[in-house]
Amino acid sequence: MVIVKEPDNYKNKWNSLFLNDQPIYLEVGMGKGDFIIKMAQEYPNINFIGIEKYTSVIVRAVKKLEGIDLPNLRLINGDANNLGSYFGHEISRIYLNFSDPWPKKRNAKRRLTSEYYLSIYDEIFKSKGEILQKTDNEGLFLSSILSLSQHGYVFNDMAFDLWATDKVYAETEYEHKFKNMGVKIKYLNASLDISKLK
Amino acid sequence: MVIVKEPDNYKNKWNSLFLNDQPIYLEVGMGKGDFIIKMAQEYPNINFIGIEKYTSVIVRAVKKLEGIDLPNLRLINGDANNLGSYFGHEISRIYLNFSDPWPKKRNAKRRLTSEYYLSIYDEIFKSKGEILQKTDNEGLFLSSILSLSQHGYVFNDMAFDLWATDKVYAETEYEHKFKNMGVKIKYLNASLDISKLK
Repeated sequence: MVIVKEPDNYKNKWNSLFLNDQPIYLEVGMGKGDFIIKMAQEYPNINFIGIEKYTSVIVRAVKKLEGIDLPNLRLINGDANNLGSYFGHEISRIYLNFSDPWPKKRNAKRRLTSEYYLSIYDEIFKSKGEILQKTDNEGLFLSSILSLSQHGYVFNDMAFDLWATDKVYAETEYEHKFKNMGVKIKYLNASLDISKLK
Repeated sequence: MVIVKEPDNYKNKWNSLFLNDQPIYLEVGMGKGDFIIKMAQEYPNINFIGIEKYTSVIVRAVKKLEGIDLPNLRLINGDANNLGSYFGHEISRIYLNFSDPWPKKRNAKRRLTSEYYLSIYDEIFKSKGEILQKTDNEGLFLSSILSLSQHGYVFNDMAFDLWATDKVYAETEYEHKFKNMGVKIKYLNASLDISKLK
């Protein structure tokens, strides 16, 4: 079963569910799954877990997976707020693709790179955590840079126009649409040494 | 005399030259001086020192200063490579305005935010150092973000289109030209806790 029904039961035990010790990468807000399915196919030596809040959206991903056997992919129909109840310190990387920009200041906390969410990620990253973000939204990108930097993350890589570089990786539904519209995709790769947190 | 002829003589003694204990802010690559003259006029409680390599350029600033009395401004006709011989740990902030982007990879070291220059700045900053950069060049901006972050700087503020924000401060000659051409000015403010350097 690709959807894990009671993810809390696997806290600190995800590697035993995958039956291996491969690193675990999450996508928070996986939408219809194009990205995470592509990644799971391309990188069999990584375990991928996609989180999606909306049931009507995640079923589209499940449909795409009919007849496809991907032992390194699981999905959770759940909320980013609850990551700390799904996982212990067992996640190596988080992908954030075209997350809701929540442009109004009063909603800044809801951005998936806000200090609020970064504190949640601190609880699930292994010794070193990595965040890879793609977005078409300049406001969200700027907010992410400041928030990540102030939380202690260091930027390993970045692009203001991803498709003009050689750093392109698995395209999402949104990305495909935006690329065709000529919208520049912004990209960042940031990492945090969890052991250095106070 | 606004130009300090033998700056090495004042190493660790700049506050005695200014006859006060005000913070000292540098502009590296001050060009014809519009920015630093404006800043010195606007902030009498800060001491400003402008550095410019080209004698033919710095004389234009000296000309502008004829008949203007600014006890909190001094200029150095010198090279950024020599900052460590001009200053001890006595600088609080460095302004980098529209620095040469040195776009080719083989010249990356020459960018004023390269690891090479950041190591020089480590030698002249007081306990906390601040860099404020403005540029029209996206490549330089990106390179600065990565380099500053990897050196330990944290971003306090940033803009991808400075003139669309309320963060505008003293306009430089280039900035005026670019603004009128509709070019977006990028801006960042980053700080480093020198005491935390290994």
